[in-house]
Amino acid sequence: MSSASSTSTHEHGDAIELLALVATLMHSAFARFAADAVDAPSVGQRLELSRMSSDAVARRDRILARVTDLGGDPVDQLERFERLLADLDARTQPATWWERLLKGYVGYGVSEDFCRMAAWGVDPVTRDLVLDVLGDDSEEELSVAVLADACELDEALSSRLALWGRRVVGESLQTVSRMLTVHPIMARIAAKGLLATRTDTEGEQPKVLNELTAEHSRRMSRLKLTA
Amino acid sequence: MSSASSTSTHEHGDAIELLALVATLMHSAFARFAADAVDAPSVGQRLELSRMSSDAVARRDRILARVTDLGGDPVDQLERFERLLADLDARTQPATWWERLLKGYVGYGVSEDFCRMAAWGVDPVTRDLVLDVLGDDSEEELSVAVLADACELDEALSSRLALWGRRVVGESLQTVSRMLTVHPIMARIAAKGLLATRTDTEGEQPKVLNELTAEHSRRMSRLKLTA
Repeated sequence: MSSASSTSTHEHGDAIELLALVATLMHSAFARFAADAVDAPSVGQRLELSRMSSDAVARRDRILARVTDLGGDPVDQLERFERLLADLDARTQPATWWERLLKGYVGYGVSEDFCRMAAWGVDPVTRDLVLDVLGDDSEEELSVAVLADACELDEALSSRLALWGRRVVGESLQTVSRMLTVHPIMARIAAKGLLATRTDTEGEQPKVLNELTAEHSRRMSRLKLTA
Repeated sequence: MSSASSTSTHEHGDAIELLALVATLMHSAFARFAADAVDAPSVGQRLELSRMSSDAVARRDRILARVTDLGGDPVDQLERFERLLADLDARTQPATWWERLLKGYVGYGVSEDFCRMAAWGVDPVTRDLVLDVLGDDSEEELSVAVLADACELDEALSSRLALWGRRVVGESLQTVSRMLTVHPIMARIAAKGLLATRTDTEGEQPKVLNELTAEHSRRMSRLKLTA
């Protein structure tokens, strides 16, 4: 095997690693939006959430098409990170509609921030695709509007949700940390991506988890909740 | 109000009545495929079912766009037949994966046959849209393949499913019958549609429920199950 083709295979392997994670997140978003659509209190919300669920399928399939282009098998790839996300899901079972909404905003926020960061550690075509697919923040906007309104009106709800948000972010960051240990390729991509995006060239080597925590604080402050 | 505009309003009302039912069926198909996608045993099936769920959203939205064109409100229309379908769903809770598959095949088969028949009782644009939207039989093909294989291998399963099929079709036909009583406009559209499609011009006036039962027998025989 020539050195050039070895590099290319290596690059493909990195890209497929990240694509597998993004596809699994999108598939999980599909299932979550679909379940939310069934439980949503109004017909208008049911319509909107069903469209978000359908949209997540289309986004997942764009990612899986790239997996196929790079010589990977979509079905195999969708199985790789399934257990990790199912575990996180099981440890953060929301008790109320509000907790469920906040879990989506916080938990998937962390996962998507991670993928955006790691996107800078893979080839440009894959990077652009991942950033584009993750770029739809209609869910974020919907959640922020609904949660911020509710918290403003109800102080007790607001404190309960602040606690819940800390629990969800704790579990999410732990999941990322476990993933970086179990999947060394992912750790390498993320580190590469983080280096590529850092603006300050001095000081300590940035840490993946620190960056994710900073993004989380920004997200909670949009709800006027303490991170 | 002139006689022409009165006729047109009347026609629109009929079309919206049928579109409301079809949209509700499609929304319910979306929710069912999405739940099936989560529970399906293999990743391949999960992918396929999530795509069917996404496709049901697109089909529902084509129907709702026609509701809007005719001056109806999609949200109001989606609420009209919701209770009827939820009741049917509650009375036919499947105990196994097989029962769930057969319920989809039989129960939605009856509903869709009804809508196909009623489509001939409304204006041609609406009729063509409804027939096109209901034309996708990928679910039917998937269910038939899986169920026929399983029944051939397992005689006990085959008899249990024959019983379950009779229960589901009984409840489905009762639901149609109740709908025709509660919604006289629907009864009129269905009768008009049935007349438009009958090929024999002699003999007794055909009955909606008889036609649906005949279609059901044809469907069960594809599985080699007694209707």
